[in-house]
Order: sequence, then C-alpha cells, then structure tokens
Amino acid sequence: MVLSIFIPDSILCEESTLRDKTIKLGFIARACSIFRVGKIYVYTEEKRVYERDYHVIKSILEYAETPQYLRKHLFTKSNVLREVGILPPLKTPHHKPYIKLDEVKVGDLREGVLVRRRGSLFVDVGLSSLIEFEGSGSEGERLTVVFTKVGPSLSCRRAFNHEVDTYWGYKVIRVGSLGKVLKSGFSGLKIVTSRLGVPINERFNALVNSVIKSDNITLIYGSPKKGVYDILKKEGLKPEDVSDFTLNFVPGQGTSTIRSEEAIIISLSIVNLILKTFALKR
Amino acid sequence: MVLSIFIPDSILCEESTLRDKTIKLGFIARACSIFRVGKIYVYTEEKRVYERDYHVIKSILEYAETPQYLRKHLFTKSNVLREVGILPPLKTPHHKPYIKLDEVKVGDLREGVLVRRRGSLFVDVGLSSLIEFEGSGSEGERLTVVFTKVGPSLSCRRAFNHEVDTYWGYKVIRVGSLGKVLKSGFSGLKIVTSRLGVPINERFNALVNSVIKSDNITLIYGSPKKGVYDILKKEGLKPEDVSDFTLNFVPGQGTSTIRSEEAIIISLSIVNLILKTFALKR
Repeated sequence: MVLSIFIPDSILCEESTLRDKTIKLGFIARACSIFRVGKIYVYTEEKRVYERDYHVIKSILEYAETPQYLRKHLFTKSNVLREVGILPPLKTPHHKPYIKLDEVKVGDLREGVLVRRRGSLFVDVGLSSLIEFEGSGSEGERLTVVFTKVGPSLSCRRAFNHEVDTYWGYKVIRVGSLGKVLKSGFSGLKIVTSRLGVPINERFNALVNSVIKSDNITLIYGSPKKGVYDILKKEGLKPEDVSDFTLNFVPGQGTSTIRSEEAIIISLSIVNLILKTFALKR
Repeated sequence: MVLSIFIPDSILCEESTLRDKTIKLGFIARACSIFRVGKIYVYTEEKRVYERDYHVIKSILEYAETPQYLRKHLFTKSNVLREVGILPPLKTPHHKPYIKLDEVKVGDLREGVLVRRRGSLFVDVGLSSLIEFEGSGSEGERLTVVFTKVGPSLSCRRAFNHEVDTYWGYKVIRVGSLGKVLKSGFSGLKIVTSRLGVPINERFNALVNSVIKSDNITLIYGSPKKGVYDILKKEGLKPEDVSDFTLNFVPGQGTSTIRSEEAIIISLSIVNLILKTFALKR
C-alpha cells in the first residue's frame, strides 16, 4: 500500500522566518514518517510566486529524510539549511545506527551513496570502511543496498524494491498545478481535506469501504491562505471533479482554523486507523 | 462531554531550551483546543525533580489559553514567558476580537478580569471601556461574563456554566502521582496511551462502545523517557489497575518513537472521530 500526500508550494506562506519554516517542515516530516507516507507531492499553487519556498520545502524535507551519515555527501552547506539543527530525528528503520563491520549480516539493508576509488565503485553506508559495490551507477548516487558478502571483505548490491520490507522514507516530488496533475491519470483513491468538505462522520462507512480496497491512497491539502476549493477554482475545477472524497477530518473543531501540519497528522491518524482496523476484515 | 488529558511534569525533559519547550507546549495547546479538551492534568512523575518544568508547563499553557487582552492583567513579565511570542494563536471561540461597544449584544459572552474603580467592581473585557459588573468577586479574578444591558451604558454579570455553549478553553490542574490520583475516585472513562498497549484495531469496537457511553473521557500519556507502565510500576500498579483501556493508537508506526505532542494530537483525532461518527447512532 502506497500512501501519498499533496501539499502546495505555498504551505510556508505564514511563517516569516527560516526557523519557523524549518520547525513546520520538521513536524510534517515526522507525521509522514510515523504513518509511512511514501511520496510527498509538492504542487504549484501559483506559478513563480513560491519558488524560494519550494526550494526550502524540498531541501529540508529531503534533508530530514536522509540518514545522518549521508548528509555530508548529498547536501552542500546552504543558507536554506541554516536551521536544520532543530529538526527532530525521524527514527525510521532506514536511519540505521553505526555498527561494527563484523556485526553486518548477509541480507542487511542500508542506505548508501556511490563513491569511486581507484576506478571502482564503492558504497558509503556510514560504517568504518567503504563497501565494495557489485553493479553499476554513477558517483554521488543515493541508493539502497543489500549486503551479499560479509567477513573480512564485505560487498553489496542494489536492493530490489521487493526486498525492502519495512518503511524506507519518503520521496519529495515536484508537480505542476493541482487540477492538472490529478486530472492527468493520477491513479488510486484521492481524498481532498477541507474545512468545507463533508464531515467525515457522514461518509465514514463509504470511506472505510474505499480505503480498504485501495493500494494507493493520496491525501490532498490546501494552503494556509487558500483551501483546495479556491485553489482548484482557478483551473475551473471543483474537488469533486478530481477526487473521490472531499472531507472535513475534524468535525466540531474547537479552533477557527487548523494549520497544515495539524491537518496532515490528524488525517493520517484516521486513515491509518481505518487501514489497521478494517483492512484485516476483508 | 468533558474531555481531559493527563501529562507528566517531565514532558519537557528532552527539550533543553526554553524556546523548544515553548514550541512543544504551543503545539499541545493547539491540539487540546482543536479537540475541545477541557482539562489538562499535570501529574508528578518524580517529586521535586521537575519543579522548574512544571512551572514552565503551567505558565505557558495558561498564557496560551488566555485571551490576548487579558494577558497584561494576569501575567507579570517572567523569564519563563520569554519566548511566548512564538506561540501560535489558538483561535478558539473564547478568544474574541475587539469590537465597538455599540456592536455588543445582550447575551454575548466574553472573558474578563475584575478591576475596582472608585469602590465598584468593573470588568475589563478588552473593549474600549470597562464594563459595570453586577455581582461580587475579587479584583484580579478572571471570569466569563454575559452582557445584561447594552446601549449608552453596558453591564454584565458572571455567566452560568450552562450559558457557555461553545468551546471555552482548558484549565491546567496540578495533581500528585499518577496512580494515586487515578485510584482515588477519578471518574469517567480512562484510556492509557502506550506503545506497549493493545493495538487500537484489536479493541476498536469495545472502545467505540465505551466512548459513546461516557460523559467524561480522559486520555493518559507517559513521559518521553518513561512510558505509563514504568511510571505506574513505581507505585506498584499496572495501567489495567487504574484505567479502562491501555491502547497503542499508532499500530504499525514507521518511527521507533512518537513524541508526546504527536501522541496527543493522534489519539485526540481518533477519539473525536469516534465521538462524532458513532455517538449519533445511539
């Protein structure tokens, strides 16, 4: 089952400092990791307006998702990453601790980066030496490897998708306008979240029935200043035209607004509850 | 229906700066407000160890809950409140905006503070003049008033509980050790949250049946370093001895740990879903 979210490039528009933007993104990274989100799509709310924020979103979400020992390979010092010290650790299975080489077992998975030494490819997997790599790729490429040989000399190869049997982080993917992307054959169950949506309690059974039948579930969020209704209106669309449900996940909310990071963790909590509680009963 | 939470005085033990503690408490204040939590009980994890943090918790949660126009009356400048500028606004119904005196209607509710002028009691409700108060009380007292007269001269009286028909913030209440408090006649449905609890999907129907019958629901959280099992063990108790359910609200979590503020908003999301979806069907 692949769980994805759509957030706008304007999601940081109410945070004025980089520190506040980093805190918000750290919270979103945590929420996505807790609930095993595989893909974070960042859609363009308004062309050219949020370029700088998009860069912040992508850099910080990807930085948070990268195992600590790979960050020096994959990120250069950048002004955008000035506040990453406050990011909470994700503590996901793919952020593996340092272990001794003789503790590595055949079949172990690890995130790594390809490096070239004397003409051959090795992988830096954050251990005390580089690991011989069986296969091809380009220097600087990040990849998931599986150990094929241990003992005095270790080697590894690229892992197949089916070998990764636990949560392995998220990808951040830039897309164009929301309506266009969702209309152009984007598959799976699509759920728009909106204060103006139908209260979840009124569609709960229908939602459960759809969720448990789906291999691919996508939750769609608006921006702090504009809900999904307004964002789609510019493209001449309504949420119903591009999604299966438009739901208010917090019926009876005690606050007049709900912030993006709150909306994300709240709706993921409920989708996870449904997946775990009802999917077993099919 | 009254919704309450129990948090330990050690809840800030992993945040080293006041800024980080303030951010965490701001998030908890928001989660409680979104889901209309009425009471936040702060229990003592270990006597005398977290006195300073308890003071931070109480001051900041109460500051966040107080309408902006009353803060100058109720809080003196204090080192503990140095970072409150970063607290997100709660935007609850009891945080009312400034309006003109001639827009006030009989029956309107407002939070205020009693002040004495020339021997009589008035209420500062954050409008352009103090309001005549019908009743008794002591200067500096915070209270909810209802307007009884408008026009050129306005007056108000203390509101009865039953007149407050919307979410009106939370109270922060200090209590002793967790086991002692819960055992000494603490009533209502008590739900311990724990990674070691039964996965919520396995008890979902039982939980629904209990939640919809309860007028009083309390969620109980452990500390970042010690779960509720460990905390109660010191008192020779188990969660089952003091609660109705001990549940893991995030079956299949993608991260090895869940932070307190995340656990709070996740479990409140699910309890709210149950209340709204199933309570109507009785």
